[in-house]
Amino acid sequence: MPATSSSMKSHRKNPGSQSALRHLNQQRLIECLLNGPSTQAELARQTGLSTATVSNIVKIMQDAGLVSTEPITSSGRRALNVRLNSNGAVAVGIDFGRRHLRVVLASLGYHIIIEETVTLPLGHHAEQGISAAVELLDKLLLESGVDRSAVVGAGAGIAGPIDRRSGTVAQGAILPEWVGIQILERLEEALDLPVYVDNDANLGALSEVTWGPHSGISNLMFLKIGSGIGAGLILNGEPYYGAVGITGEIGHATIHEYGAICRCGNRGCLETMASTTTMIELLGKGTGVHLEPEDIVRNALAKDPATLRVVDDAGLAVGRALGNVANLINPEVIVVGGPLAGLADILLDPIRRGLVRHAVPVIGETTHLAMSSLGARAEALGAAALVFQHAGIKQS
Amino acid sequence: MPATSSSMKSHRKNPGSQSALRHLNQQRLIECLLNGPSTQAELARQTGLSTATVSNIVKIMQDAGLVSTEPITSSGRRALNVRLNSNGAVAVGIDFGRRHLRVVLASLGYHIIIEETVTLPLGHHAEQGISAAVELLDKLLLESGVDRSAVVGAGAGIAGPIDRRSGTVAQGAILPEWVGIQILERLEEALDLPVYVDNDANLGALSEVTWGPHSGISNLMFLKIGSGIGAGLILNGEPYYGAVGITGEIGHATIHEYGAICRCGNRGCLETMASTTTMIELLGKGTGVHLEPEDIVRNALAKDPATLRVVDDAGLAVGRALGNVANLINPEVIVVGGPLAGLADILLDPIRRGLVRHAVPVIGETTHLAMSSLGARAEALGAAALVFQHAGIKQS
Repeated sequence: MPATSSSMKSHRKNPGSQSALRHLNQQRLIECLLNGPSTQAELARQTGLSTATVSNIVKIMQDAGLVSTEPITSSGRRALNVRLNSNGAVAVGIDFGRRHLRVVLASLGYHIIIEETVTLPLGHHAEQGISAAVELLDKLLLESGVDRSAVVGAGAGIAGPIDRRSGTVAQGAILPEWVGIQILERLEEALDLPVYVDNDANLGALSEVTWGPHSGISNLMFLKIGSGIGAGLILNGEPYYGAVGITGEIGHATIHEYGAICRCGNRGCLETMASTTTMIELLGKGTGVHLEPEDIVRNALAKDPATLRVVDDAGLAVGRALGNVANLINPEVIVVGGPLAGLADILLDPIRRGLVRHAVPVIGETTHLAMSSLGARAEALGAAALVFQHAGIKQS
Repeated sequence: MPATSSSMKSHRKNPGSQSALRHLNQQRLIECLLNGPSTQAELARQTGLSTATVSNIVKIMQDAGLVSTEPITSSGRRALNVRLNSNGAVAVGIDFGRRHLRVVLASLGYHIIIEETVTLPLGHHAEQGISAAVELLDKLLLESGVDRSAVVGAGAGIAGPIDRRSGTVAQGAILPEWVGIQILERLEEALDLPVYVDNDANLGALSEVTWGPHSGISNLMFLKIGSGIGAGLILNGEPYYGAVGITGEIGHATIHEYGAICRCGNRGCLETMASTTTMIELLGKGTGVHLEPEDIVRNALAKDPATLRVVDDAGLAVGRALGNVANLINPEVIVVGGPLAGLADILLDPIRRGLVRHAVPVIGETTHLAMSSLGARAEALGAAALVFQHAGIKQS
C-alpha cells in the first residue's frame, strides 16, 4: 500500500497541514498493523511517534471502524492491543463505464464480499448512472447482510480526466455526459456516504499495487487501452496527481504530426491509431458489421489476418509512446489493462517491440511489461482501495 | 526544500529501513527549524514525534555540524534550544562539464561563500577532472578561510545518466570519458569527504526548488538544453529517480521515426533536432566557422535570420516533446536552463507554441514555462543542496 496519497478529497487540503501529517502518520500505523495486532507502545516504538500521537490516531481509526482495541497484559504491564478490522470495515467500489456499472463491497483485508455488474445504455446521462449505483448498492447490502454502518465510504472511478481545481470531469472524457458535473458532491448526496473519486486509469494503477501482484513496486504505470487510452501512475510509492489532477494522458501523445484529427482537437494522437474505437473502425470498413472489443479478442485468437495486423500496428504505436514515457519516468513495471487484456502476448509483443525500439537501451532492457491480472474488476477494486487509503482522516 | 529524497547514496539502502524513517523524521525537524530556533519539546509537539526520537535526531545532526544546541529556561523549566548552523556547516558543490569545472562552497542557509570555474580541455579524462576538483577545492578552502572540518560533504553533478544499480555513468553520456567509472567511490577517495552524485539535470531541478524562485512547487521539471537535452524531475515534492535512476531522457523522445541517427542508436530523437550541437552544425554548414553556444545567443539577439530560424525550429521540436511530457506528468512549472538561457523569449516562445499545440488543452493552458534564473551555476548549487539533503543521515 502506498505510504501516502492525495485523493480528490484530501487534495483540497493544504498539503503541509496537520491533517496531511496525521494522514502520513496513520499510514505508518496501518503498515505496521498489516503485519498483525500490536500494542500502542509497540506501535510508538516502531514508528518513532509519541505514545500520545499513536493514541490519538488509534482513537480516530477506531471511531471510523478501521481498528478495534482490547486491554491486555504485556510484560506484566497493562497495555492496549490494536488490530485492523479486516471484516468490520467495508468499502464500496464503483466503476462507472460507458455501458456498464460495477459495484463491489470489499473488506479492509482486501477480500471481495459481493459484487455485481449491470448494463446501462450507451450515452446514458450521469444521473441515470448515479441512480443505478444507489439501487445496486442497496441491493448488495441487502444480499450480503452487511450493515450500512460498517461502510466507511465509497470510491468511484470515472473514465475521464478530473480537474482537481473544480472537482469536475474535464473536457475530453470518454463519458461526455459527465463533463462539468460536481461529481463528488453529487455522489455524496445520492449515496449518503463519504465519497472519493478518481480517474479509471489511476484506480487501475492503485488496484495493481493493492489488490494486484505488484504490491512492492514503487514506480508503476497502468495503461488502459479501451475506447480511450490513459495511464495511471504510482511514483515513489504514491499515487501521482500532478498540478491540476490531469495526468497519464498518453492517449494524446503525438505520433504523427499530420495524422487524423483526435477528439481532443489535436492531430495524430496515439488514440487515433490504437484505441479500440480506431481498431473497430478499421476492421469494420466496408463490411457494415459493428464489432465489439471482445470480437477483436476472439478474432485475433482465431488468427484472423486483418485483426492480427490491426492489433500489431496498434501495439507498435502504443510501444512507441511507452518508449518516450519510460525514457522520462523509468517505471519498474508497466501493466496493460482494459478490454483487450485477453489478447495477452498478441498485444504485448508489438508493444514490447515498440518500447525497445524507442527507449534508450538500458530503459528498454529493464522495463518490465505485463498484462493486468485483475481484468474488468481493476477499476472497482481500485475505487475500494481509495476508500481505505483515506478513511479515518475525514473523521477529524 | 523537498520533504524527502533519495540520492545515489541513500538509494542503496532499503527504503523501508530504520535509516529511511530517520531521514524522513530529520527532514521534518529541519523544516520546523527553518522557521527559527526551537526547543526540543516544541519540535516534538510540532512533528508528533516522541521527545526521545527528537533528542536522538538532534544529537546526530549536532555531531554532523548541522545544528547547535544551548540550554535555556522556557516557561520556568529547563529546555534545550536547537538552531540550524546556517554558517557552521559548509557543503561543496561540484559541476563537471565537458570543458569546465565549477566548485562552490555554500552554507546551510543557502549562501554562496566562494566559487570558481576553471576551463578544462575538451575530451579530458575523468581523472583529470577529479584532480582539478581536488586542487580547486583546496584553493577555495584556503582563500575563504573555511576549516575543512566544517565541510559536511561534497555533491557532484555529471552530464550523463547514472545507473544506480552499478553506481556508474551509463552509456549515452555527454561525457563519454566518464562511462563505467565508479564515480562515487573514486570521488570519495580523492576528496576525502562524503560524496553524493547526481545527473546535471536532476541537480538543476533541485537547485530551482532550493536556491531558485520555485521553492513552494511540488511538481517541477527542469529541462537542460545543451549539447545534450535532459530533464530533472521534482514530483510530489521529492527528487524523482525512477527504477534504475535514469529518468528525464527527453532528449531521446522520438520526433521523426526516420530522422537522423542519434548517439543513443535510435533515429529522429529530439537531440538530433534541438541540441546546441545540432544548431551549431546547421549554422556552420559550408562556412567552416565553428560556433559556440554563446555565439548562437549573440547572433540571435542581433536578429541574424538563419540563427532565429534554427532557434525557432529547435524550440518547436522541444515544445512538441514537452507537450507529451506535460500530458503525462502535468507539472506545475517547467524551467528551461542551459547555455541558451540568455535567449529568453526568443527560445521560450517557440517552446510555448509547441507545448500548447501538442498538449491537451487544459494542460497547455495551465503549465507555466520559465527560463532558469540560476544560469550556469544551477548544477553546482544543486550539488551543494544535495549534500544538505543527506548530511546527518550518513553519520548513523
